[in-house]
Amino acid sequence: MTMTTRKKNYLRPIDFKHGHIDMTHGAGGRAAAQLVDELFARAFDNEYLRQGHDGALLPFPTGGRLVMATDGHVISPLFFPGGDIGCLSVHGTVNDVAMSGARPLYLAASFILEEGFALADLKRIVESMAAAARDAGVPIVTGDTKVVEKGKGDGVFISTTGVGVAPEGLCIDGRQARAGDVILVSGTVGEHGVAVMSLRESLEFETAIVSDTAALHTLVQAMLQALPDPTALHVLRDPTRGGLATTLNEIATQSQVGMVIEEALIPVLPQVEAACELLGLDPLYVANEGKLIAICAPEVADTLLAAMRAHPLGSGAQRIGTVTQDAHHFVQMNTRFGGRRVVDWLSGEQLPRIC
Amino acid sequence: MTMTTRKKNYLRPIDFKHGHIDMTHGAGGRAAAQLVDELFARAFDNEYLRQGHDGALLPFPTGGRLVMATDGHVISPLFFPGGDIGCLSVHGTVNDVAMSGARPLYLAASFILEEGFALADLKRIVESMAAAARDAGVPIVTGDTKVVEKGKGDGVFISTTGVGVAPEGLCIDGRQARAGDVILVSGTVGEHGVAVMSLRESLEFETAIVSDTAALHTLVQAMLQALPDPTALHVLRDPTRGGLATTLNEIATQSQVGMVIEEALIPVLPQVEAACELLGLDPLYVANEGKLIAICAPEVADTLLAAMRAHPLGSGAQRIGTVTQDAHHFVQMNTRFGGRRVVDWLSGEQLPRIC
Repeated sequence: MTMTTRKKNYLRPIDFKHGHIDMTHGAGGRAAAQLVDELFARAFDNEYLRQGHDGALLPFPTGGRLVMATDGHVISPLFFPGGDIGCLSVHGTVNDVAMSGARPLYLAASFILEEGFALADLKRIVESMAAAARDAGVPIVTGDTKVVEKGKGDGVFISTTGVGVAPEGLCIDGRQARAGDVILVSGTVGEHGVAVMSLRESLEFETAIVSDTAALHTLVQAMLQALPDPTALHVLRDPTRGGLATTLNEIATQSQVGMVIEEALIPVLPQVEAACELLGLDPLYVANEGKLIAICAPEVADTLLAAMRAHPLGSGAQRIGTVTQDAHHFVQMNTRFGGRRVVDWLSGEQLPRIC
Repeated sequence: MTMTTRKKNYLRPIDFKHGHIDMTHGAGGRAAAQLVDELFARAFDNEYLRQGHDGALLPFPTGGRLVMATDGHVISPLFFPGGDIGCLSVHGTVNDVAMSGARPLYLAASFILEEGFALADLKRIVESMAAAARDAGVPIVTGDTKVVEKGKGDGVFISTTGVGVAPEGLCIDGRQARAGDVILVSGTVGEHGVAVMSLRESLEFETAIVSDTAALHTLVQAMLQALPDPTALHVLRDPTRGGLATTLNEIATQSQVGMVIEEALIPVLPQVEAACELLGLDPLYVANEGKLIAICAPEVADTLLAAMRAHPLGSGAQRIGTVTQDAHHFVQMNTRFGGRRVVDWLSGEQLPRIC
């Protein structure tokens, strides 16, 4: 389905206050076209979407490499402190593109709607998504909507795909960590997962815990610009599902290195610490949606840390450890009490449907 | 989640014969990594996926324009005569990219899996998807998997996003139809929708009706190459949901023209005709997944038709009508009985979850 206004004369406008999704909204006929016209096309409006074709035709900078990332969003509940599935689905994919050092250019969005879903909720989500895309400066250029029967979905799922452009020569990826490198994190960890879990468990805390959901591409650009030689930045990764611990394990395996991190240096908000204790969670395994891990050559660590701290989304950045030689590719942690333990992969289900 | 093999040593291999999806497969830990390693990364394997990053870094031809299309697939049942959701999700998106005249380059895939879904079915689907991508020459370069609880999904939903490259100067889109243009269709209509509906209704026919699902990008390239001036090709569109009738109405509205088509010239297989009668469907509104509509300047219609017929996926191509001036943007049809009627938009639900 194209996501453009067809300028049809519909019998009456959609009732976004009291209406609900029904199966006709996914059948490719007039009802589907009207929903696209009066909601999606209006909220996302931009010159590319207006082309009215299934495929959007887009300028691409000469000489750069294309970066492509996709992410399905199934978070439950759909609205949470600090955000909703709409803005999350923009931030998550913008961040996936940005973590290769690329500048995100365009987004595509695929919606799977459940019959009976309140149009008022859908409208709120689509508008939040549109605002997030606008704020990030990354337009949603094409989209699709499908409808499934009641009990075959869960309100709305959103798969977003992003493309961006990376300068030639940059090689930031999970295989580039080297022994001696320094591990930085852009701020406190665990807020997103704990905000969602607190809501699910109906926990209330004295200090509200709000998701950190944010688009990190401007932080990444600021970091790259601070480095005389950007190839000294080896790995960027956003520790989403599975949290900091799982992401570090992934990188250690991919780069065939070990890591040693310092528990005392990992920033965690006291209220997140307290909530994790109550919920039986470990903040190191809890999802973040607005934080990044950077691994860089030791000689640029201070420069990079300063650049991160100068950016609003990196003001709480910390150096948390170093990359080591280790045939077992273990991530180890020096604890606050002077011990050292292995920080393993998350083995089972800790937090389902957290993004 | 990156879709690369992490080469972890798992306790035991996944049981793809008797196993089922559980919530741990979506939690971002070891179980999720193992599913990616032993299924997705193995089936889709290519140099880009092996980068092991959330965003794949990809070469892009200099000077072309980027085309981007996305499509969610929620077809029910997941397996149908002639295909399954896996190959369909490749064909559908390759076609959306191709309909702007672009050469499809890369695919991204986002899976939403339901807890309890049989791993044997998932494996069959992923392997069908991998084969379709290989046959089309369009690699799946990045992906994501999420899991939702039993009763919150329906086996598997697949959102695929494609990018391609379009030569500068080409302008094929739904707004380009002009009065006097000729309307061509690449073959018989209605097979996909009728194949799926027959299965749902447990209808059996003497002659099997098989979905036409196919990737049309090589047909499009053959058509473009046959034209001395490819700008004489004004519109390409694959008539999926809503079928030929709805797609023609969309184009008429976008181009602000009318159309007159000839019922006697629209190719429909006799068994599709018969099944439609039984099912109470109109083949003009039934989804196709391997057909295209082409609208071109009258002077190139014969050349284009010959090029289509010379391609295996266009062997049944027909000239079915012409574009007219019409302030109401009506699609009209001269019937077999010598009358003329308006072929309206599909107004309600005809075929839910057909793609």
